[in-house]
Amino acid sequence: MTKTEATTAPRPEDRSADNDPAELIGNLARAGRAAQSRLARLSGPEKAHALQLAASRLRESEEEILAANVRDVDAAREAGLSGALLDRLTLDSARIEGIASAVEAVAVLPDPVGQKIDRTERPNGLVLERVRVPIGLLGIIYESRPNVTADAAALCVRAGNAVLLRGGSEAVHSNRAIHAAMVSGLAEGGVPADAVQLIPTQDRAAVGAMLAAAGLIDMIVPRGGKSLVARVQADARVPVLAHLDGICHTYVHNAADPAMARKIAYNAKLRRTGICGAMETLLLDAQFPDSAALVGDLLDGGCEVRGDARAQSLDSRITAASPQDWDTEYLEAVLSVAVVDGLDNAVDHIAAHSSGHTDVIVTEDAAAAEEFLAVVDSAIVMVNASSQFADGGEFGLGAEIGIATGRLHARGPVALEGLTTYKWLVRGGGQIRP
Amino acid sequence: MTKTEATTAPRPEDRSADNDPAELIGNLARAGRAAQSRLARLSGPEKAHALQLAASRLRESEEEILAANVRDVDAAREAGLSGALLDRLTLDSARIEGIASAVEAVAVLPDPVGQKIDRTERPNGLVLERVRVPIGLLGIIYESRPNVTADAAALCVRAGNAVLLRGGSEAVHSNRAIHAAMVSGLAEGGVPADAVQLIPTQDRAAVGAMLAAAGLIDMIVPRGGKSLVARVQADARVPVLAHLDGICHTYVHNAADPAMARKIAYNAKLRRTGICGAMETLLLDAQFPDSAALVGDLLDGGCEVRGDARAQSLDSRITAASPQDWDTEYLEAVLSVAVVDGLDNAVDHIAAHSSGHTDVIVTEDAAAAEEFLAVVDSAIVMVNASSQFADGGEFGLGAEIGIATGRLHARGPVALEGLTTYKWLVRGGGQIRP
Repeated sequence: MTKTEATTAPRPEDRSADNDPAELIGNLARAGRAAQSRLARLSGPEKAHALQLAASRLRESEEEILAANVRDVDAAREAGLSGALLDRLTLDSARIEGIASAVEAVAVLPDPVGQKIDRTERPNGLVLERVRVPIGLLGIIYESRPNVTADAAALCVRAGNAVLLRGGSEAVHSNRAIHAAMVSGLAEGGVPADAVQLIPTQDRAAVGAMLAAAGLIDMIVPRGGKSLVARVQADARVPVLAHLDGICHTYVHNAADPAMARKIAYNAKLRRTGICGAMETLLLDAQFPDSAALVGDLLDGGCEVRGDARAQSLDSRITAASPQDWDTEYLEAVLSVAVVDGLDNAVDHIAAHSSGHTDVIVTEDAAAAEEFLAVVDSAIVMVNASSQFADGGEFGLGAEIGIATGRLHARGPVALEGLTTYKWLVRGGGQIRP
Repeated sequence: MTKTEATTAPRPEDRSADNDPAELIGNLARAGRAAQSRLARLSGPEKAHALQLAASRLRESEEEILAANVRDVDAAREAGLSGALLDRLTLDSARIEGIASAVEAVAVLPDPVGQKIDRTERPNGLVLERVRVPIGLLGIIYESRPNVTADAAALCVRAGNAVLLRGGSEAVHSNRAIHAAMVSGLAEGGVPADAVQLIPTQDRAAVGAMLAAAGLIDMIVPRGGKSLVARVQADARVPVLAHLDGICHTYVHNAADPAMARKIAYNAKLRRTGICGAMETLLLDAQFPDSAALVGDLLDGGCEVRGDARAQSLDSRITAASPQDWDTEYLEAVLSVAVVDGLDNAVDHIAAHSSGHTDVIVTEDAAAAEEFLAVVDSAIVMVNASSQFADGGEFGLGAEIGIATGRLHARGPVALEGLTTYKWLVRGGGQIRP
């Protein structure tokens, strides 16, 4: 939007779909819903075949996609982007192959649509079944990774949903090229073109209109950093599937196997520090005998450690934690460490500071493990494993659309099942209600 | 609120919890959440026992409840209430027994908390389970039926949830008496008193504060008429479980058994006209031979029938339907009737006008039945049965908190399972992620 546009109120005759974001989103959503009702009638194999064709078309379109990506990367460099942000944006031949392979991987996942959840027969002879059906029209709002355009579209289509995609402005040309290839392959396979629509404007007001489109968009999934997710959660009138923070705890119980605890803590923090399942706070039981060695491993591995007073006494390299450290998702090689007195104390700390994503206990005491599993109220609760396993792929779900820490509909890693709802089918033989 | 209060801005020193609705709801919600975390630790039998005690206390408190109810009924009469509204409000000994029995019926339902949804073992040895857990804190907003105070509280407690109850002002004294009896019995059974709280003010702003309490209240269930549900759906920032309309269709296919079709149509419309599962629109296939007799039954039974041109030709008593008839939930002995040409035409009418609650086909043609079940996208789709079966009790779910037509979390009749979410339990033996 130029400054003139931003400061001049539109005249009534300008209120076309081109510049009224609500009207634009309304038109796209209605087209998407109409396409979805046709998509919903395709069989599982038909949808799978259409996704295979989309993958092929992505490979065939490598030249166009890379040319579009060069425009984005050049513009981003000119705008001063660098490092990780630029890396996320940049495509090459191998990454396009990765995008196409990911679409194929979704194509071969079992079709969730039509799966029976349960069946009951009533004394009056009515037979009730719940079967999975698509949700309808989803909105995906994401940032600079162009692969999301293909990943998210593939998951939505596999589950019979239409989707409105809103990518970051840095990736606008890449997203358009990937979208064009996807839609062309899908259309060849019989998926209506409007089932996968890319919002054609980078106007930020279009995002606001998506968030406000209750009744037109059934669910929104934000994929990106915390500020994006926070804005979506704060403003959306449409249900949102997301997690804001991954403040994951590992509690090393007094009955933990020391070697296992050291291995798990190191992996949970340092395998990859930038993922939402990375440990951010370590809780060491005061009775655990090997705390100094465990923290020493992390410090030696290049991790900055901030501790409470008792933790600081374990190693002189530990700095003092401030109160906000306990509520911080670092996403880098920084860790907060507290010494706690027993399981109740650990659970209280987790209840006060966890973001409800993934929390772990390390212990050889089966009763303590079961108590922790029962009492900690997070989307994922683990015993004797690294929190970095918190991932749809690692859970055997295939690709995930995201990890949810809300309490309704779907929780933890959300894959195809979370992109469906159900309906009740009732088969009778003329029953009337007395 | 008196007129003076309503028109005078509060001075800063007045902004206590007593007159700041957001602060009031915040305080109640925090107390409720704290109570819920203790309630969640009770076993299934402990919760069941506490509900039995609550039922006993309701019976023992009959005198107090009836005395409170007389105050409400007298005030309502003075305010000019009459008929159905006054009847809903009025309690007697039999109705109190009914309320107590309903609480006992919930007590004996299977505990959903802790139920395993599924279990998988990964190649690396991690064992994953999904188990049902309480949602947290629910809000129930209802109108003049005082029995909801006990019904809704019992369902919430059975599923381990805390609840904020906001009843209608007509029933304020009755609700307080019922609430006091419930809480006293529950507390004797070890359920924290704050697990079931009645909003202590009838200020309408308290409802607004509940609807805005995202992050404090996990889900709101409105129980009442369309204007209440519409307001809740329009204003809530908290997820809402509800249905606005029950515009239920019965499609009599050309291959319907005539006697069965007549019986089902009559029951679907006239058994009880005021429930959400009552038929509001009848679609008669142009090839169905017995349409005149079927509509004649309904007319003879006292039903007003409004039809399109072809339907009007069936019986001279049928008046002309207006376009809005197809989108109207009458909830009385009025029916709209259209003649349609085949299943696709019927499905199109349903897609355009159904509220997504319950839609029915009557047919002896199995292929047509399966096509209808597959294509109609309503919460409940029936073959050869009366739509009046759309009810949690009839579905074998025990008591229901309501029927939902939204697409996420729970759909159709919502009972205990819909008042839970799940978490992932992961049991390992020291696995770290490669």
